[in-house]
Amino acid sequence: MSLADRVRYPDFLQRVMSADEAAALIPAGANVGMSGFTGAGYPKAVPLALAARIENEHAQGHPFRISVWTGASTAPELDGALAKVNGIEMRLPFQSDPICRNKINSGEMQFSDMHLSHVAQHAWFGFLGHLDVAVVEVAGVLPDGRLIPSTAVGNNKTWLDLADKVILEVNTQVPEKMDGMHDIYYGTAVPPHRKPIPMTHPHERIGEPYLHVDPAKVVAVVHTQQGDRDTRFAAPDAVSQKIASYIIDFLQFEVKQGRLPAHLLPLQSGVGNVANAVLAGLLDSPFEQLTGYTEVLQDGMLDLLRAGKMVSASATAISLSKTALADFTENIDFYRERILLRPQEISNHPELVRRLGIIAMNAMIEADIYGNVNSTHIMGSGMMNGIGGSGDFARNAYLSFFVTPSVAKDGAISCIVPMASHVDHTEHDVQIIVTEQGLADLRGLSPTQRAQRIIDQCAHPDFRPALHDYVARAKKGASGQHTPHLLDEALSWHSRYVKTGSMKLG
Amino acid sequence: MSLADRVRYPDFLQRVMSADEAAALIPAGANVGMSGFTGAGYPKAVPLALAARIENEHAQGHPFRISVWTGASTAPELDGALAKVNGIEMRLPFQSDPICRNKINSGEMQFSDMHLSHVAQHAWFGFLGHLDVAVVEVAGVLPDGRLIPSTAVGNNKTWLDLADKVILEVNTQVPEKMDGMHDIYYGTAVPPHRKPIPMTHPHERIGEPYLHVDPAKVVAVVHTQQGDRDTRFAAPDAVSQKIASYIIDFLQFEVKQGRLPAHLLPLQSGVGNVANAVLAGLLDSPFEQLTGYTEVLQDGMLDLLRAGKMVSASATAISLSKTALADFTENIDFYRERILLRPQEISNHPELVRRLGIIAMNAMIEADIYGNVNSTHIMGSGMMNGIGGSGDFARNAYLSFFVTPSVAKDGAISCIVPMASHVDHTEHDVQIIVTEQGLADLRGLSPTQRAQRIIDQCAHPDFRPALHDYVARAKKGASGQHTPHLLDEALSWHSRYVKTGSMKLG
Repeated sequence: MSLADRVRYPDFLQRVMSADEAAALIPAGANVGMSGFTGAGYPKAVPLALAARIENEHAQGHPFRISVWTGASTAPELDGALAKVNGIEMRLPFQSDPICRNKINSGEMQFSDMHLSHVAQHAWFGFLGHLDVAVVEVAGVLPDGRLIPSTAVGNNKTWLDLADKVILEVNTQVPEKMDGMHDIYYGTAVPPHRKPIPMTHPHERIGEPYLHVDPAKVVAVVHTQQGDRDTRFAAPDAVSQKIASYIIDFLQFEVKQGRLPAHLLPLQSGVGNVANAVLAGLLDSPFEQLTGYTEVLQDGMLDLLRAGKMVSASATAISLSKTALADFTENIDFYRERILLRPQEISNHPELVRRLGIIAMNAMIEADIYGNVNSTHIMGSGMMNGIGGSGDFARNAYLSFFVTPSVAKDGAISCIVPMASHVDHTEHDVQIIVTEQGLADLRGLSPTQRAQRIIDQCAHPDFRPALHDYVARAKKGASGQHTPHLLDEALSWHSRYVKTGSMKLG
Repeated sequence: MSLADRVRYPDFLQRVMSADEAAALIPAGANVGMSGFTGAGYPKAVPLALAARIENEHAQGHPFRISVWTGASTAPELDGALAKVNGIEMRLPFQSDPICRNKINSGEMQFSDMHLSHVAQHAWFGFLGHLDVAVVEVAGVLPDGRLIPSTAVGNNKTWLDLADKVILEVNTQVPEKMDGMHDIYYGTAVPPHRKPIPMTHPHERIGEPYLHVDPAKVVAVVHTQQGDRDTRFAAPDAVSQKIASYIIDFLQFEVKQGRLPAHLLPLQSGVGNVANAVLAGLLDSPFEQLTGYTEVLQDGMLDLLRAGKMVSASATAISLSKTALADFTENIDFYRERILLRPQEISNHPELVRRLGIIAMNAMIEADIYGNVNSTHIMGSGMMNGIGGSGDFARNAYLSFFVTPSVAKDGAISCIVPMASHVDHTEHDVQIIVTEQGLADLRGLSPTQRAQRIIDQCAHPDFRPALHDYVARAKKGASGQHTPHLLDEALSWHSRYVKTGSMKLG
């Protein structure tokens, strides 16, 4: 497909240039808002060209770094390439790239780990500084200059509105028929001018299918034709299948008790294999007419839609394996009726998450015995990916699940620990913890009641006695009995792992 | 004033009885929803009578405990009396009574510390169990059976709706002219039936002035005439005046930078002396036409209203010193035009806090160098009061301040520590930390950037070198450099305090 078929606003055809030429328009020190959410809809050419330019500048002894703001994670062509050449000063709000992560954890790169629902508004408030440039992938341009979004919406609306200069990457490999699958809400404002967001069910359209941009700001149009990162999922293994089965049993029980409607409430599912397995589990469950209201539409949710188990899904990005992508492209008319992609300030909005009554399911790194959850840090100091939208959903959800296998690193790490080495979700926000060992329903409990339930239901048997022993000794030695801790020992499991490679004693 | 003047629904006059008789209607093991929010509007007679009954039952060897759900904190006549006789099995969602606290920290009583905006909905969802009895203070009953609320609304609407049996305490000492000061919203529902909450400015009425109750459920009416707890405030001292002055300077700077409107945005202020001092500071500031949208209206906000600095204040409770109460009562027609008291699910609602763009100011126990805040726990194990509404406001606010003196216990405790001994507000939710040493603006920073700013701006000079030293050594010894921690040392300051009475070395 030629670029002219997709760029139907004639002026923009005058601004077509190479990625190298476009990258040359980004000054050192700039704050750059890029598209991209969970490996979908990120610019494929300009960041690579910019990385080459930065490498060249550095070779000549010129300092050159930019700050990179996105929707969420991107791909090697963006985060990986720019991190590799030490081109990033400050990264926000989320990343999951191995090179990027290494640079953050070696202290060579700054990272501000934010709730994904906060990013757009903090940019609007001016809290993040001035946005100099936007680099946004789109599927095409309408004759009137409006933009057809790509596979992720993320913060693109905000970047296009706020940036001084805009570079568009028009990706002709994005299916043309995605046109109409997006819902861009232009009703947000800055306080005191905000209005209620007029959505009462998860598949309701509240905006329009296109992004706006002031054409005068568009300094470059770059043609790409390259698919998104292949987001592969492991086939559900025994551990994730068990986790899924506990959740499904629990949901059935809640329906029976009258605490959930028969068709449940809109489902949110975090990124990754376990979350995907839960959705796979729902495929074989008795539930019907499900709905999704989530950040990222992954293979599992697509399967539910295709099978007719789920009637609609709202997300901000669609992040699929190659196989699922083929199905999506082939049956895009079917999916366009059932999928809405929205800005992440809407997909993750606390107002909507609470109103719709989302059932939130998110992965974690570890939970402590009192119900505090660490979603981000390895052994208290090193960053994994970031909090993402887990806090947006968990805090405001109707039901909030946090899931993890009970152990990691072949059993050397217990994912249930005396004290979390970092806290992203406090005891006030964590309702249900699930591992392959079982499910701990923490609603309405005190910390010491939670401890018994978490240890007995969720901890791996290898670590259960030591956890019970910790509680028993803390009940004697702690300075208070509400959340009894032994301060000299609370983080000793993590310390032992760092020193010996195992949390196990001796 | 006679009871008949206040109880104008004739049927209820047939159900007038003594507090002892009413207390006899509460069965052992019951879940009891009581009125009361920050020492305002709590029942004064029935809990005391129930405590006497429980003491008597215990003396006879009969087990007798109830679970007590309220709005927030109450007073000695409720929490103190029931805790003293070991009459409380489970307490939620907040308390601040010394006896209650001791029982929680000795492990004799369970406490579920909840976000105040979550309580009503979790009760509606059925997550807290069945509500057997409501004991609610009101100012009077209309001829049609509707209730005139008292000095706090809290969760009263929910308790009256959900409980099987209702005991009303009609307090004839509550000013009759409070009639009309309340705004009870009956539009909440359980998902999937929720609608947008139709409020766009802080003084907007969205409900009606009265509480509903099914008259058939009212099993007892008890007459009381006793004022609320006298909530005394210390006169602002040098420390709290300094904190206030940093906040006011910062707000002026933000207005100048165009990041805040000239009349600011609605102010939320937590409970206590420092928060009160900030409001006192605003009295002498150049700001005009302020608005308040908060949980508890305290003396400081009343002063702002009287002085004409603040045009309106919304809260769920009015909790005043004796002097302020006298002024409030005397000038109640003036205040009724300017004050709205609402259910706490509305005063603290995430949807509204974000939409209105609240400026949130809350006290804390400690912050760590990376910006995590502990609002609830003493040395990691003992409960102070609870998280209250601080999380409802901080997470969703336009600006979120956390304030504390830099040291406690005559300088033995640093309120800035290497690692918080408990986390209630994560790094993702904490924007600005203020002590009498200075103000640390953390917006857009990475953890290590925050650490420099928090230590330099907020820590007491006595502890600054040790904190810098911790960071310097963690930057060498930690397993990751995003949030560098020394796991064996992170909680050593708290441990040292517990052992030696000081966080200082040697």
